[in-house]
Amino acid sequence: MNSSTSLPLAFSSSTALDDGVLERRFTLGEIPGILWTPPTATPSHPAPLILLGQPGGLGMDRMYPRLVGRARGAAADGIASAALELPGSGDRTPLPGADQARADLRAALTAGEPVTDDIVDRLVLPLVDRAVPEWRSALDALLALPEVDGPVGFSGGVIAVGVRLALVEPRIVAAGLFAGSYVPRSTLGEARRVTIPLHVLLQWDDEGNDRQAALELFDAFGSAEKTLQANVGGHTGVPAFAGADAGRFFERHLR
Amino acid sequence: MNSSTSLPLAFSSSTALDDGVLERRFTLGEIPGILWTPPTATPSHPAPLILLGQPGGLGMDRMYPRLVGRARGAAADGIASAALELPGSGDRTPLPGADQARADLRAALTAGEPVTDDIVDRLVLPLVDRAVPEWRSALDALLALPEVDGPVGFSGGVIAVGVRLALVEPRIVAAGLFAGSYVPRSTLGEARRVTIPLHVLLQWDDEGNDRQAALELFDAFGSAEKTLQANVGGHTGVPAFAGADAGRFFERHLR
Repeated sequence: MNSSTSLPLAFSSSTALDDGVLERRFTLGEIPGILWTPPTATPSHPAPLILLGQPGGLGMDRMYPRLVGRARGAAADGIASAALELPGSGDRTPLPGADQARADLRAALTAGEPVTDDIVDRLVLPLVDRAVPEWRSALDALLALPEVDGPVGFSGGVIAVGVRLALVEPRIVAAGLFAGSYVPRSTLGEARRVTIPLHVLLQWDDEGNDRQAALELFDAFGSAEKTLQANVGGHTGVPAFAGADAGRFFERHLR
Repeated sequence: MNSSTSLPLAFSSSTALDDGVLERRFTLGEIPGILWTPPTATPSHPAPLILLGQPGGLGMDRMYPRLVGRARGAAADGIASAALELPGSGDRTPLPGADQARADLRAALTAGEPVTDDIVDRLVLPLVDRAVPEWRSALDALLALPEVDGPVGFSGGVIAVGVRLALVEPRIVAAGLFAGSYVPRSTLGEARRVTIPLHVLLQWDDEGNDRQAALELFDAFGSAEKTLQANVGGHTGVPAFAGADAGRFFERHLR
């Protein structure tokens, strides 16, 4: 379930943003994606790459303003970024069982009942199992471009996807994770075997998250360098300075 | 117990460090201290000030290498720093009951027994009660110097001292706290009333600290801006990048 299959990359549009960042839409097989490269990225000076994770369900178009903001920040440090539509998000085919899992989650939350491991597994694991090989295929294709090179970082999105990628994909050397989604028990086991440097953001008052589970996950990681940064506020309230700190983490490890 | 008494400031030495930072030893009444001012600090451009906290017991001379490192970092951002020998530390008179409290702490740790609230109170509260008015007197004297001005930050040292100062001293507008010492229950109550911006460092594997108590303290703070940064490692293993992040916190709030 973690191996990549070779999928063809085809660019469909190319736009120069006002700060000189080149934004190119692509498809990887049938999967839509966006690549942002800094003006410094050339075949003789290829840029390192950050894979921009997303929350499940919203879709890349609705996430675009935040994605391009993160990409511009990375580009200012000479780093390329890529986003990929998640399985079941945007216009992609819904994941089997996803609607039922979301309905069960809502029912549990509405009833004030605990969100069971079974619900979390059905909500998250099918996404992880499908997204990870797609990201690995994207890496194969993106790193074959002359202006993009390693090392590679993974940033944000569904934390269980980041953990799995950090574990199975050796080209990813650093991960900035967002502790803002449910954590399957099996992800805790995978976390113990993760050894790359980690920067974990936690919104202390995240209404859709279990703080204790996030702390347990941070504790589990086997990495010799791991940082937890927790800030006041809800899921979408990550302060600007926390974004800047995460940017410095990637600059330290990818440049 | 929180009011300051007026104590005279007398400089005893003055040394220009190689980076242009001026290091002046002083006494405040009988209490030894050190003031570091950046080359940019003049009566027409007075510098903001960081009070450099210290751990209890070691004494300012043994802490000097770390203190001057922190002071140089702040000076590079145009910020002055001051250290003050803690009550009972260095050559100062031991605090009544401190030896017994330390012996009881060691006995509990050796026996693998929990460190009781009673031990923590006897270990920490007499220090807090004496240190806080001394720091406030130091502020009176240091802010009267033409080259030093507010706003003021408090950084590191005994966290219960930092919490009390953040609560009672309105000239302190931001605090960088180190969750590396025992937390009396009463400090938790004080923390709920603290509202200034906070940057709290926690060493995740601190052998002489209770991680759960540190998280509970962070949760308690009433501040609308509070950041917890936790890193892998023991008490003395704060990574260099964490120091830089704390420096940026003060730059943001004092400049």
